Amino acid sequence: MSSILQQLRPQDDTTTAALTDPLALAADLGERLAATAIERDRAGGHPKHERELIRASGLLTLSIPAEFGGQGADWTTVMAAVRILARSDSALAHLFGFHHLQLAGIQLYGTELQQRSLLTATVRQKLFWGNALNPLDKRTRATASPAGYILDGVKSFSSGSVGSDWLTVSAWVSGADRDADAALIAVVPTEQAGVHVEADWDAFGQRQTDSGNVHFEKVYLPTALVLQAPGQAATARSTLRSQVAQLIMTNLYLGIAQGAFEAARDYTLEQARPWFASGVDDAIDDPFTQHRYGQLWLAVRPAVLLADDAARQLDAAIRKGDAVTARERGEVAVAVAEAKVLAHRAAIEISSQMFELLGARATSSRFGFDRFWRNARVHTLHDPVDYKLRDLGRYALSGRVPVPTPYS
Amino acid sequence: MSSILQQLRPQDDTTTAALTDPLALAADLGERLAATAIERDRAGGHPKHERELIRASGLLTLSIPAEFGGQGADWTTVMAAVRILARSDSALAHLFGFHHLQLAGIQLYGTELQQRSLLTATVRQKLFWGNALNPLDKRTRATASPAGYILDGVKSFSSGSVGSDWLTVSAWVSGADRDADAALIAVVPTEQAGVHVEADWDAFGQRQTDSGNVHFEKVYLPTALVLQAPGQAATARSTLRSQVAQLIMTNLYLGIAQGAFEAARDYTLEQARPWFASGVDDAIDDPFTQHRYGQLWLAVRPAVLLADDAARQLDAAIRKGDAVTARERGEVAVAVAEAKVLAHRAAIEISSQMFELLGARATSSRFGFDRFWRNARVHTLHDPVDYKLRDLGRYALSGRVPVPTPYS
Amino acid sequence: MSSILQQLRPQDDTTTAALTDPLALAADLGERLAATAIERDRAGGHPKHERELIRASGLLTLSIPAEFGGQGADWTTVMAAVRILARSDSALAHLFGFHHLQLAGIQLYGTELQQRSLLTATVRQKLFWGNALNPLDKRTRATASPAGYILDGVKSFSSGSVGSDWLTVSAWVSGADRDADAALIAVVPTEQAGVHVEADWDAFGQRQTDSGNVHFEKVYLPTALVLQAPGQAATARSTLRSQVAQLIMTNLYLGIAQGAFEAARDYTLEQARPWFASGVDDAIDDPFTQHRYGQLWLAVRPAVLLADDAARQLDAAIRKGDAVTARERGEVAVAVAEAKVLAHRAAIEISSQMFELLGARATSSRFGFDRFWRNARVHTLHDPVDYKLRDLGRYALSGRVPVPTPYS
Amino acid sequence: MSSILQQLRPQDDTTTAALTDPLALAADLGERLAATAIERDRAGGHPKHERELIRASGLLTLSIPAEFGGQGADWTTVMAAVRILARSDSALAHLFGFHHLQLAGIQLYGTELQQRSLLTATVRQKLFWGNALNPLDKRTRATASPAGYILDGVKSFSSGSVGSDWLTVSAWVSGADRDADAALIAVVPTEQAGVHVEADWDAFGQRQTDSGNVHFEKVYLPTALVLQAPGQAATARSTLRSQVAQLIMTNLYLGIAQGAFEAARDYTLEQARPWFASGVDDAIDDPFTQHRYGQLWLAVRPAVLLADDAARQLDAAIRKGDAVTARERGEVAVAVAEAKVLAHRAAIEISSQMFELLGARATSSRFGFDRFWRNARVHTLHDPVDYKLRDLGRYALSGRVPVPTPYS
Repeated sequence: MSSILQQLRPQDDTTTAALTDPLALAADLGERLAATAIERDRAGGHPKHERELIRASGLLTLSIPAEFGGQGADWTTVMAAVRILARSDSALAHLFGFHHLQLAGIQLYGTELQQRSLLTATVRQKLFWGNALNPLDKRTRATASPAGYILDGVKSFSSGSVGSDWLTVSAWVSGADRDADAALIAVVPTEQAGVHVEADWDAFGQRQTDSGNVHFEKVYLPTALVLQAPGQAATARSTLRSQVAQLIMTNLYLGIAQGAFEAARDYTLEQARPWFASGVDDAIDDPFTQHRYGQLWLAVRPAVLLADDAARQLDAAIRKGDAVTARERGEVAVAVAEAKVLAHRAAIEISSQMFELLGARATSSRFGFDRFWRNARVHTLHDPVDYKLRDLGRYALSGRVPVPTPYS
Repeated sequence: MSSILQQLRPQDDTTTAALTDPLALAADLGERLAATAIERDRAGGHPKHERELIRASGLLTLSIPAEFGGQGADWTTVMAAVRILARSDSALAHLFGFHHLQLAGIQLYGTELQQRSLLTATVRQKLFWGNALNPLDKRTRATASPAGYILDGVKSFSSGSVGSDWLTVSAWVSGADRDADAALIAVVPTEQAGVHVEADWDAFGQRQTDSGNVHFEKVYLPTALVLQAPGQAATARSTLRSQVAQLIMTNLYLGIAQGAFEAARDYTLEQARPWFASGVDDAIDDPFTQHRYGQLWLAVRPAVLLADDAARQLDAAIRKGDAVTARERGEVAVAVAEAKVLAHRAAIEISSQMFELLGARATSSRFGFDRFWRNARVHTLHDPVDYKLRDLGRYALSGRVPVPTPYS
Repeated sequence: MSSILQQLRPQDDTTTAALTDPLALAADLGERLAATAIERDRAGGHPKHERELIRASGLLTLSIPAEFGGQGADWTTVMAAVRILARSDSALAHLFGFHHLQLAGIQLYGTELQQRSLLTATVRQKLFWGNALNPLDKRTRATASPAGYILDGVKSFSSGSVGSDWLTVSAWVSGADRDADAALIAVVPTEQAGVHVEADWDAFGQRQTDSGNVHFEKVYLPTALVLQAPGQAATARSTLRSQVAQLIMTNLYLGIAQGAFEAARDYTLEQARPWFASGVDDAIDDPFTQHRYGQLWLAVRPAVLLADDAARQLDAAIRKGDAVTARERGEVAVAVAEAKVLAHRAAIEISSQMFELLGARATSSRFGFDRFWRNARVHTLHDPVDYKLRDLGRYALSGRVPVPTPYS
Repeated sequence: MSSILQQLRPQDDTTTAALTDPLALAADLGERLAATAIERDRAGGHPKHERELIRASGLLTLSIPAEFGGQGADWTTVMAAVRILARSDSALAHLFGFHHLQLAGIQLYGTELQQRSLLTATVRQKLFWGNALNPLDKRTRATASPAGYILDGVKSFSSGSVGSDWLTVSAWVSGADRDADAALIAVVPTEQAGVHVEADWDAFGQRQTDSGNVHFEKVYLPTALVLQAPGQAATARSTLRSQVAQLIMTNLYLGIAQGAFEAARDYTLEQARPWFASGVDDAIDDPFTQHRYGQLWLAVRPAVLLADDAARQLDAAIRKGDAVTARERGEVAVAVAEAKVLAHRAAIEISSQMFELLGARATSSRFGFDRFWRNARVHTLHDPVDYKLRDLGRYALSGRVPVPTPYS
């Protein structure tokens, strides 16, 4: 066992209490996040306290196999938990979801030893993982060194990096004897010397995603922490990681859509007044209001069914292990893309159109209802929906599954 | 046993051969219907030969419980068969689906004796059932007579009546000692004296649905054939019949949508030419074509998932028998309404927008591609989609399930 | 004057009577066409009698300058007349519009002598022009001969060719000493030896557009009838012809949209019944009905304003004569494209959605309401709407005007 | 002349300099507002400095007839100025537009004396008017007193009240001898004793509209300042005020839509990167980007044409003076409603969809691009778009013009 991996020794031996229902835990956690979500959205910044709430919930080990001390939940369950949290606070849900994405990466790319050491450490030390993998930002370079690599450069859009314990990172190998385009994927402790996380995320939504630029300055990366070597061909199985990522986003969007829907509904039930020209005494009896709620409902419901269906397909593919074929991986990608486009639309449409149902008084900042649109709007730009539609069209036309990329 | 029911004695003892896969049978039948669908759509009229193909397929007994000699398929399977047939020929799919709707009515309204005699007869005599139930057309009156009723009047939109063996009929009781608004539901042999079926359906789509006006002239209706007596309160269970009807339509629309999609796709793959300004050599490489196919695909896929989910809910509710509650019945109605609105939209949008993908040459009558829109357009007017959206909105807003009516 | 042009001598000296209001004439003509439009749509075939009604109306000379004996109407007026006719009968409106398109071609491409002789002859002989210009069908070849060319080949989608007096034709020059890609544009009498018009149009809409394949077998084409020689560069002015064509289509689609809207409105006012669950006594009081009519209205109104605006811009550009610049021509193309996309959408959406407002009884063939969708669907496929949107996007983004082609 | 009106004596005799082009002035003003719009949107609060920029521009007298010292611009020009300002800063554009709305009220409701004194004072003293008219908030009561009324109560949604010189106010008369439902409309100096303007507007958009609750505590209202007495019947002419209001909003939405479109376009041209899977080198060559820009363009363009058309109709109606009929007033309301619905949709859709074209980096707060959606979203809730569609549907169906209300 490499020395670095040995350092991942247990510092905290309390194992997670028996969790009978992770979704009940998630719901409980969601309620606690909801209590301060509006003011934290306004304030922005690092949600230190809320990260601790998540950590304390025990849900950080949800996706870790039981053999490593986790709950061994399937992805269908993890996705449901992401969705539940996103109803209340989609920024924290993102931190939660992307933590599990990093764990998925370890399981899909890592050696058995890496899985055992990193996942066990995650359980024992209650580690919170962040992301520094942005494959479109190639400014972080890896230079071969005696026992590994030296990382230099910067990585943007690193969600969850601020306040994380460990990071997944991608870097481009610049050595002369290698393909100039080869990337490696590795993990590093956030506190590793030379890693500087900049809390410079200033988007108008998803404000507490602890995202920002991560700078690497002569960061030593031992080979033992490299999950995927520069020349290593991706397998059908390992490329399922991007489907985990895409499905986390799908459920995040759905959570926003559901949260917005519920906020609108509660407001209509409790506070809305009928329009003077409607001829009804109660806002909920306005035929146009009923009709619009029917339409918004139909924006969410199918997306939920598709997302759950895609999660089951993802689980089935992952259960096949290395035997999963490129075709099967492609079918999962199609199912996820279908769900993602619908969830994208649902989140954007509901969070914007809900106001038609509520009226001007609902725009008061004290309700914080605009955060649904801002959060959905920022997060749905992760990758362009038009290229999802293109991929689906190609599949529908000629059966071609999407080319595996970090986005498809 | 009443004399009328005794007449339903076996005239044909050959029981249906073991059908291992009804959907394979449906697919096979669909292919045979497809061969002449375009020309029969053009000609209109009574599809005598094709009705016999359906009868010969053995699928007329699909929904009949095994104890009465049928295959005892659940509604999920029956719906799937409707959808398969509708891909090729939505008029014949309608005849098939509404035949099973009448059988559902017997099972949901009828006494045990009625079920046994009518369903057994249906198996043994290979009966084809038609509909004369239109609840909005109250022109057919029932007058109490010594051992039953006398029916007089006319019933419009009676699909499947032309060429049927038996009909389900509703009539309004005009006797002075009863509530003037009370309706009865009954069955009558189409050849019963006084029943005149008029083949006067002239809609621009669904042309071979054997629909038309059924005239009743002093038709004797023995009490034994009355499924639901005039004063009899509907139960949660019996009102599930309208959900069977709505779900048949849902799957019919979906079959049209899928048929249109496949016709478009095949044309694009085999015949379409790239637009001169596209810069691509092959029509399937046009980015706008791919994007549009992606969008149309996303119109169908969710509707299919919702329809299948609704069918499973319907089956579960029916399996509960008399124990099914009004709330449970209402939840089924919500699931069916969700699926129906999406299927409605999918059928209309795909059958109209497919042409943007195919170009002017595809409008030649020899392809018959306009029949998808005409069939979808005519059939989706059964009941207004806006009131489905209203019902869904009411449910989404305040949890109110739809009031049971023949349409909800 | 060439001998061919001399043959265009007056055969009928009665000049068109003073027409005080061409649009009143068009409205009157439209009413007469409406009387039989449904049955002629059903029958298809050549509308010989209705062509004579158009001829007798005097409107065939509407766009011909006064100096040649025409009414000298601007294009804004001609387009309005097309729209009026299309409300009643979009197939005959197409014949009318494309007749004027050929006259536009003569004015935009032709020499002064050609204009004088051909337009004067059109007035005096009440000629009806047809189209055989399809630039995407390059099967008609022109071979240079002593005093002109010999035409051979076939030309598809030749609307208005059946029953025409003269045709505009395009042909590709196959001589070795010329650019193999060069096309000529010319006029020929339909009765010229070797011209065979095939009445083989079988689309499911726009059935009486007298469209079909025109075959040319050793057809002698004297130089005097060549409007645009093979090598001749198109000018900004001459390429305005495609904008005349596009704007005719725009107004045709708008006429269909308006005709459909009016048919729906009249049906709702006169025949529609309120839905039983609506709680209103009169269909026009249904809030969803009112809301939908509002939406359909908003599909037509802006398109009308844009079409009229584009027509005024077209007139202004044409009035500039040879001084019109490529930029000005491009701005006209943008205005026409804007109007065309909106008109396209209006026609398709209204003709399909109108049925949601009318209910199942309105699908009876005796109303012929499906012809609006069939006509709109067939005609809007002339060129892909997605490429219009692309052109508009390019313009909106970087100010690039559309490249002049026969479609833009 | 009443003493109050006498107080409106000239305090500043410099007349506005000759303004050759008010729209050039507006464009210049807009540019100055744009320079700080993003930071002021973030900060919220009272735009004292920017109000002075508007005042200094001379545009506060734009709608005042020349006879009273104003520029006598028609409403078409005032609306264009609103639109220009809203491209840069829709909150300040609102203050500007609603100032002119109050001036419209004086002209439409006021006596000749009131017009002369109030408008002349507005010119000479460079007064800035605010609104406290909200007709749905009936909490402000007027009690008859010897020479006028005493106002008590509160008025919400009073845009432009903070920092205003004068206010238009509505109040409900509670005297026993009057119709309990009668309202009066009057003007009061904001500094009048008992008037307290609360700067408590906290909506998430249109943050600097100086809106809030205005409290009236024993405010003396002399009869001379009452524009419309409690019992006084509204005339077709006076109810045009709501059309002025609605058209100001229309142009405000359009300005937002145009501002958002231009911001997106500039970003795409200058900063956007092509998506890695697009196969193009420049973002502006992405076919989906071009197509989407085409669609957004088509959301704005028709709305602009309709808004301008409606403004011309409004001007024509106002020029008719008292001769304007209820029907003519109604036709104006229809034209304004058409434009308003389109502008509403354009503003909401463009401000939300623009991000699909820009990608995640464009969500950085430094660009402030979310303000377009927030501003549009808040302001478009003034009155429900569904009731505009209902009104348009009623008109389209049966020719009924909208009932004059403060919203239609």
